[in-house]
Amino acid sequence: MTTLPMTVPAPGLPARVRVHEVGPRDGLQNEQTVVPTEVKAEFIRRLAAAGLTTVEATSFVHPKWVPQLADAEQLYPLVSGLDARLPVLVPNERGLDRALSLGARHVAVFASATESFAKANLNRTVDEALAMFTPVVARARDEGLTVRGYLSMCFGDPWEGPVPLEQVVRVCRALAGMGCDELSLGDTIGVATPGHVQALIAALGEAGVPASTLAVHFHDTYGQALANTLAALQQGVTTVDASAGGLGGCPYAKSATGNLATEDLVWMLDGLGVETGVDLGLLTATSTWMADRLGRPSPSRTVRALSHKE
Amino acid sequence: MTTLPMTVPAPGLPARVRVHEVGPRDGLQNEQTVVPTEVKAEFIRRLAAAGLTTVEATSFVHPKWVPQLADAEQLYPLVSGLDARLPVLVPNERGLDRALSLGARHVAVFASATESFAKANLNRTVDEALAMFTPVVARARDEGLTVRGYLSMCFGDPWEGPVPLEQVVRVCRALAGMGCDELSLGDTIGVATPGHVQALIAALGEAGVPASTLAVHFHDTYGQALANTLAALQQGVTTVDASAGGLGGCPYAKSATGNLATEDLVWMLDGLGVETGVDLGLLTATSTWMADRLGRPSPSRTVRALSHKE
Repeated sequence: MTTLPMTVPAPGLPARVRVHEVGPRDGLQNEQTVVPTEVKAEFIRRLAAAGLTTVEATSFVHPKWVPQLADAEQLYPLVSGLDARLPVLVPNERGLDRALSLGARHVAVFASATESFAKANLNRTVDEALAMFTPVVARARDEGLTVRGYLSMCFGDPWEGPVPLEQVVRVCRALAGMGCDELSLGDTIGVATPGHVQALIAALGEAGVPASTLAVHFHDTYGQALANTLAALQQGVTTVDASAGGLGGCPYAKSATGNLATEDLVWMLDGLGVETGVDLGLLTATSTWMADRLGRPSPSRTVRALSHKE
Repeated sequence: MTTLPMTVPAPGLPARVRVHEVGPRDGLQNEQTVVPTEVKAEFIRRLAAAGLTTVEATSFVHPKWVPQLADAEQLYPLVSGLDARLPVLVPNERGLDRALSLGARHVAVFASATESFAKANLNRTVDEALAMFTPVVARARDEGLTVRGYLSMCFGDPWEGPVPLEQVVRVCRALAGMGCDELSLGDTIGVATPGHVQALIAALGEAGVPASTLAVHFHDTYGQALANTLAALQQGVTTVDASAGGLGGCPYAKSATGNLATEDLVWMLDGLGVETGVDLGLLTATSTWMADRLGRPSPSRTVRALSHKE
């Protein structure tokens, strides 16, 4: 039997949160080990079976840039019949063509709040990147797809330092204006703290981008991811990105820059009585299974604690 | 230069928090490595120099029970001249005698909220333990000492499961009634979540034990420690226990049951603009130094991230 927290609701939180699981894409993309396509498919199946209704499956970025996800064409058909939303990343019209040809119904584009990261990640200015995404989002919407806009470096940038709220608001408005259904605010280097999170969400609300259209995407580099998530929930956000087992940052590598672990998030939400539909025991078993495939323990504290008790 | 978070205050938080540093006592007590007395003294000196105003120094428990702290008589005089509060644990009158003979001005007793842990840790019922502490607290107060009451298993117990709020309130009222100046609410097995934390603090307030007399003491077993701390601060708590570098639970051992890392806490409080007086760079350097003495990396995410950048 899985150990579970005692359920004690807190005031001012949503009744239900949608967990946007990014492990198979954002997690595996950053792992050193190359994972066989069938293992990825099994990982996605198990995540869906654990109750995750949104599992970001892969990326249609050019294989040269993300070799770990070069098997997108082979992987997607193996999982497309699952009863879950399976968003895929598309950087440009060519990527969208590939996604559409496989029947994808949910896509995501990825912008940057800072010029330095736009240059480093996309070799474009912020506005050039937005111009590249505009026809992609328009066509995806015409085809009836949902479109998520990722925004990196919303709180700090390794080259530019703290990122002004206005700068983030400007790019968010542009992404919303071109038709993105949902915006995911990324703390790519993990420097955010709860007041900063709440101030950004408030500033977006004042600028016409309501919390109901936002997701938060925190990295645990400085151990702040879950506290920041709590702050975002208190501000009305109901979609939270997380990575099963904390995949995406190796705790034994130079810097533990991993994503928020889905299990640590679900533990908190279970304790708060916030519904997610996720079975923590099945999810933990999935992450333990995946950790075995990767040959190292999960960095999720909940996975470590539960997997040593069962 | 140390990377620092951008400072953005959040409403409803205290202007200042006192960090009660437990690394030299609660941290080292649970480490496998036996640390030489002079290294412990240097650790405490460095922590005070980093701006920590309260550093729990050692324990006057019988050396048979806590061999790692058997050098309390030798250690205390090496640090007693520091400009910081240096509380010491005293389990009984004999321990108080030893602390008084060395000139200690701040002591702590440690009770349990559950019968199972009282039996396991103190070989007494909860009420027998309280009866043992009553004359200790009275004499300490007569001598002009401040007395902290630790309360273990305030949220969950490995044998009993979830712990009812009323049970915790009863023991807290008894500790406050016998003269403890401050009560530290311990989540010894790390199962608490933010709503549970807020409910307990509210219940204590209604029972006449105000948040101003409370400290919170979270373990990061399930990754919840910092989110729980944020919830406690929102409820008016202004004293937080933490362990430099997250000492006290080895991340490579069976279960990562360590204390909240002081650096992860200070990162959050710096970002929130909550004053602590702690210099994060000096503190991180101290924990890196101590990790070298212990022969393993710090489990604090902030320490790992910062120590790889400097």
